Amino acid sequence: MVDISAQASPAVTRVADALRSGALPDVAAYLPDMSPGDIAYLISASPPATRHELWSLLDHEQEADVLNELPDDIRNHFLADLQPEAVAEIIVQLDDDDVADILHELPQAETDLILDSLTTDDRERFETALSYPDDVAGGLMSTDTLTIRPDLTMDVVLRYLRRHTRLPENTDSLIVVSREDKYVGLLPVRTLLVSDPSASVREMMKTEREPLDAMTSADEVARRFERNDWISAPVVDPQGKLIGRITIDDVVDVIREQADHSLAVMAGLGDGDAFTPVLQTAPQRAVWLAVNLLTAILAASVISLFQATIEKVVALAVLMPIVASMGGIAGTQSLTVLIRAMAMGQINDRTEIWLVRREILVSALNGLIWAFVMALVTTYWFDDSTLGLIIAFAIIVNLLTAGIAGASLPLLLERLKIDPALAGGVILTTVTDVVGFWAFLGLAAYFYG
Amino acid sequence: MVDISAQASPAVTRVADALRSGALPDVAAYLPDMSPGDIAYLISASPPATRHELWSLLDHEQEADVLNELPDDIRNHFLADLQPEAVAEIIVQLDDDDVADILHELPQAETDLILDSLTTDDRERFETALSYPDDVAGGLMSTDTLTIRPDLTMDVVLRYLRRHTRLPENTDSLIVVSREDKYVGLLPVRTLLVSDPSASVREMMKTEREPLDAMTSADEVARRFERNDWISAPVVDPQGKLIGRITIDDVVDVIREQADHSLAVMAGLGDGDAFTPVLQTAPQRAVWLAVNLLTAILAASVISLFQATIEKVVALAVLMPIVASMGGIAGTQSLTVLIRAMAMGQINDRTEIWLVRREILVSALNGLIWAFVMALVTTYWFDDSTLGLIIAFAIIVNLLTAGIAGASLPLLLERLKIDPALAGGVILTTVTDVVGFWAFLGLAAYFYG
Repeated sequence: MVDISAQASPAVTRVADALRSGALPDVAAYLPDMSPGDIAYLISASPPATRHELWSLLDHEQEADVLNELPDDIRNHFLADLQPEAVAEIIVQLDDDDVADILHELPQAETDLILDSLTTDDRERFETALSYPDDVAGGLMSTDTLTIRPDLTMDVVLRYLRRHTRLPENTDSLIVVSREDKYVGLLPVRTLLVSDPSASVREMMKTEREPLDAMTSADEVARRFERNDWISAPVVDPQGKLIGRITIDDVVDVIREQADHSLAVMAGLGDGDAFTPVLQTAPQRAVWLAVNLLTAILAASVISLFQATIEKVVALAVLMPIVASMGGIAGTQSLTVLIRAMAMGQINDRTEIWLVRREILVSALNGLIWAFVMALVTTYWFDDSTLGLIIAFAIIVNLLTAGIAGASLPLLLERLKIDPALAGGVILTTVTDVVGFWAFLGLAAYFYG
Repeated sequence: MVDISAQASPAVTRVADALRSGALPDVAAYLPDMSPGDIAYLISASPPATRHELWSLLDHEQEADVLNELPDDIRNHFLADLQPEAVAEIIVQLDDDDVADILHELPQAETDLILDSLTTDDRERFETALSYPDDVAGGLMSTDTLTIRPDLTMDVVLRYLRRHTRLPENTDSLIVVSREDKYVGLLPVRTLLVSDPSASVREMMKTEREPLDAMTSADEVARRFERNDWISAPVVDPQGKLIGRITIDDVVDVIREQADHSLAVMAGLGDGDAFTPVLQTAPQRAVWLAVNLLTAILAASVISLFQATIEKVVALAVLMPIVASMGGIAGTQSLTVLIRAMAMGQINDRTEIWLVRREILVSALNGLIWAFVMALVTTYWFDDSTLGLIIAFAIIVNLLTAGIAGASLPLLLERLKIDPALAGGVILTTVTDVVGFWAFLGLAAYFYG
């Protein structure tokens, strides 16, 4: 039994139980003590009707925090129901990178209405973050940074910090900047806490950490955080001036979305929510089915060229799906290897030739093995060794094609700026279907005339 | 042109350029100043021969840190070349959770040899972590924690910290424990830095954070970190005693592996490295091709039952792959939706019925649409309206089957403790192939005799 209570935190389990038994007053009583993340999780793990019930039970003050923890599509769904003034009231409570994230996804007209209902101060606070696209370092950063000068002593820094009532989230380091606001280095809080109070920032700071350029892609930002186990990283403009700071919590979202994206898109799903209602889901899926119907008709029209041969040797109709299917499977393996390596940033001119060559060799080898096996199976099944030889030949041709297409398609699509996870699979199986049917039936037509 | 230099950090680019031009002395000169994470990335983004070159150029002191940042399979590959004593020398420099991770993946005999070459102190240090499996909180945690008592004042805590030369990595909070080492709460460093020096830990600590139980699954740990934006979390035993602490850097690896796992496994790839050589890759892939060959032969044997009908109406051979392929595509969509929702922890008894019903309705709707379209296409193409009706009926049956199987298979497999991402796709396409061929050819046999 897949059950939320098997693993979830006690707080989540309690509310899930109350929801199941329909005890809404109990749910309402538990919610105020729950973390925004847990509430957001409960909402996202509920069907649409329950989501609205949960949302309506929230305290007014909880709304902003919960909204901020929700997946983008669910968050936008709730926001769409609110007036611009209500949205404005919510977003002023959020970090500027989260606000940029929200406003980037709304229609421009609505964004303008929301910005209009803000005070000038708030509008200015969001301006820097809004000036970068979502998928680069500038769009992920918060401008809420804590900076210090290199000539201070630890003692002075500690006193300076104590003047704050709160420090920015995930402050693992203070950022050291020059008088011109240029990035100089980082002073880890860990260092600050154990250092001699009279030591200077200049002596104790770490200068070997390269800052992130504001235009670095979100994917590369995620990879650098992963590789170096960062908690936060400074972001600079082209002149080296500090403009913000990215924290691991936003990077974790990028990592999750990036990995999930390939999976969803390869199945023709888009990045959407699992609980989209029927009438919205059906048309979204229909588009993908339409594309695949066209490619299936293309493959069928290849078969139709050989109707006379099939009429003579009907065993061809029995065997031809096997040739096509083996090519599709082998090609999908090569394709997925390349798509994964791309996501990990492992593709470069030193590795791509190596990988394409490896894929071709692997499919050639597997082509030989399975050609041999299918030759035996076919000869035995239909008592026809010519047919055995024909299918063996077709399998070798199709698996070799699968390896070449599976490995080179993602590289080609990437250069054409087309998402390989989206288009790769359809193009690949079209190629392996067409080549598989053509090789098998074409050769049969030659032999059986 | 996909190029490492387009995005990577300047340090990585410099070495990548030197590697490309074969200037090994330059590479050797750059390496000592690079972060272990960047070196590990360079190694993982290189073909096998270059990897060994890079490894041999490392300083002896860098080896442990670089090894720790490498993906598991590459790390184990390098470790396999070392003597147990050399491995022991490396692992004593690592955190206990990382050591547990390494030792869990080596053969037991080798692990024993390595443990034997450790001092008693070191062996004891690793014992707690080694006593938990890798995929639960206990296996992810480090026992290197910094604890304080609730009756201390901030001032005393600061002085206590200053007695350390270094604090554990990612110390965003100090863990407050009772005299019996029971978990009581957390004192965020952010709070410590801005609090009145005379305030007590008891007044300032946060007690609402539930600790993680040592047996919580790694997937659930990852989801809670994601949901609540944690940097670190305390781990307790069933009696509530603090036994360790999990940090976000290890959780990020879990998230990446978890998401990547579904993608790899759905294509029959396993979790391996992109750069496994041909002779190792080919047999791995062959297993998957063998499974798929068996299912393709099963589908073919369904076709073979209707050879007499196909001989009469050869258009059936042309059209039958379309029926099977539409079912496969629609079913894969439902399957992927469920697998994603499972990975996000969104499946529970409140949502699974909703989702299965939604999937069935969506496929029924799409079945009707595409049945209608294919009826028109077929009637026009082969000038045979009976054939049009037959294919329409078969498409409705197969898409409905696809929706039911795609949505319920993952739930069923999960209950049988079989990975739905691994087995789901094969079983699903077998079902849609068999049902598709059977419905289409069976009905045709009835009409055309």
